[in-house]
Amino acid sequence: MGRTSDAKERILSAAQTLIELRGYSALGVAEICKAAGVPKGSFYYFFTSKEDLALAVIDEHWAGQRGNWHRILQNDDPPLQRLRQLFEATEADQRAGQQSCGTVSGCLFGNLTLEMSNQTEALRERLQQIFEAQVDMVEKVIAEARERDEVTVADTHEAARSVVAQLEGQVLFAKLYNNTQRLNALWTNCLALLGAAAPRPSSLTTDEPSAVSTG
Amino acid sequence: MGRTSDAKERILSAAQTLIELRGYSALGVAEICKAAGVPKGSFYYFFTSKEDLALAVIDEHWAGQRGNWHRILQNDDPPLQRLRQLFEATEADQRAGQQSCGTVSGCLFGNLTLEMSNQTEALRERLQQIFEAQVDMVEKVIAEARERDEVTVADTHEAARSVVAQLEGQVLFAKLYNNTQRLNALWTNCLALLGAAAPRPSSLTTDEPSAVSTG
Repeated sequence: MGRTSDAKERILSAAQTLIELRGYSALGVAEICKAAGVPKGSFYYFFTSKEDLALAVIDEHWAGQRGNWHRILQNDDPPLQRLRQLFEATEADQRAGQQSCGTVSGCLFGNLTLEMSNQTEALRERLQQIFEAQVDMVEKVIAEARERDEVTVADTHEAARSVVAQLEGQVLFAKLYNNTQRLNALWTNCLALLGAAAPRPSSLTTDEPSAVSTG
Repeated sequence: MGRTSDAKERILSAAQTLIELRGYSALGVAEICKAAGVPKGSFYYFFTSKEDLALAVIDEHWAGQRGNWHRILQNDDPPLQRLRQLFEATEADQRAGQQSCGTVSGCLFGNLTLEMSNQTEALRERLQQIFEAQVDMVEKVIAEARERDEVTVADTHEAARSVVAQLEGQVLFAKLYNNTQRLNALWTNCLALLGAAAPRPSSLTTDEPSAVSTG
């Protein structure tokens, strides 16, 4: 049993790495099994198809990311600070990925949306569910900020969609330029999209992150 | 000579359609030639590789889109209205694509960025050049709007990047939901990102497009 369970994990882990590096279409089951060090027969013991595996990779990645998003977005800090922490965590994740594989690989869900959502309905539906869950989580925080009169936006759901869309768009640029500093704009833009007053007025008029003096 | 030139155009046209429908990795040269009705030998007469073809597809698509962007962004209307027209043209393009192939295929450049920019440097560089040109075009319009005191944003280049990032993010959602109405948010969000006063105050506080009564 121990070995069997380990094989499934190895296939999932290898598939996630390969999908992040090269997308879904370019991969074959044989290559995934080789990278996982697992015979091809094991693959079909756990997964009915490559699409079935992709759904499992998406689910596993989302289980981890959802936990992180919940931890950040439901902590005790003021609501807008939690959104800022979410952007900082996104940048840290992309930077860690860049350090481990040499290039910013972007958001797994955004990548698969642009590559596959118009081709397989099963992937489209799963990705829709994930983005809807992200928007719902962000919307709750925006609603809290509005209750505190920190943002002026009228439609919190639409605003949350726009914040997540901006996040995906800036991650696209971070991948294109292999530069996670592109994500610095997220906080300022989020404040603008929400009609928020900046905690420090200067952060609305410059695109620099808060300067920390080490001198 | 007429037939030769026609073969190249047919290959380019078939490749663009197939890349929009199924991405780059999933395609083979044989399939492209079959769709174009051209023998495989002709392919290698015009293109050294599939990547070489992809660069040609990108260039041709950008030549057309750049012309449209110039026509819209350099017309005689007030600058913010030109940005609105750009978003409306983007939605019209995506809707036309949806009507012709049944599904929103998204932005060719955004699709290829997330699928390929971390895999081939030639595609990465070409896509960077195109997005930089888009940002420069948008920035000129924002600078005009700032001269007219219609927007308050300090860094026009950073603001233009954010407008293009938001555009890519919302197109991603339009593709995910196969629904071009997702792009309705672009205008309101653009005004918010630029610190602009809305031409009609209501458009900053609702997410509805201007209501037209037919009653």
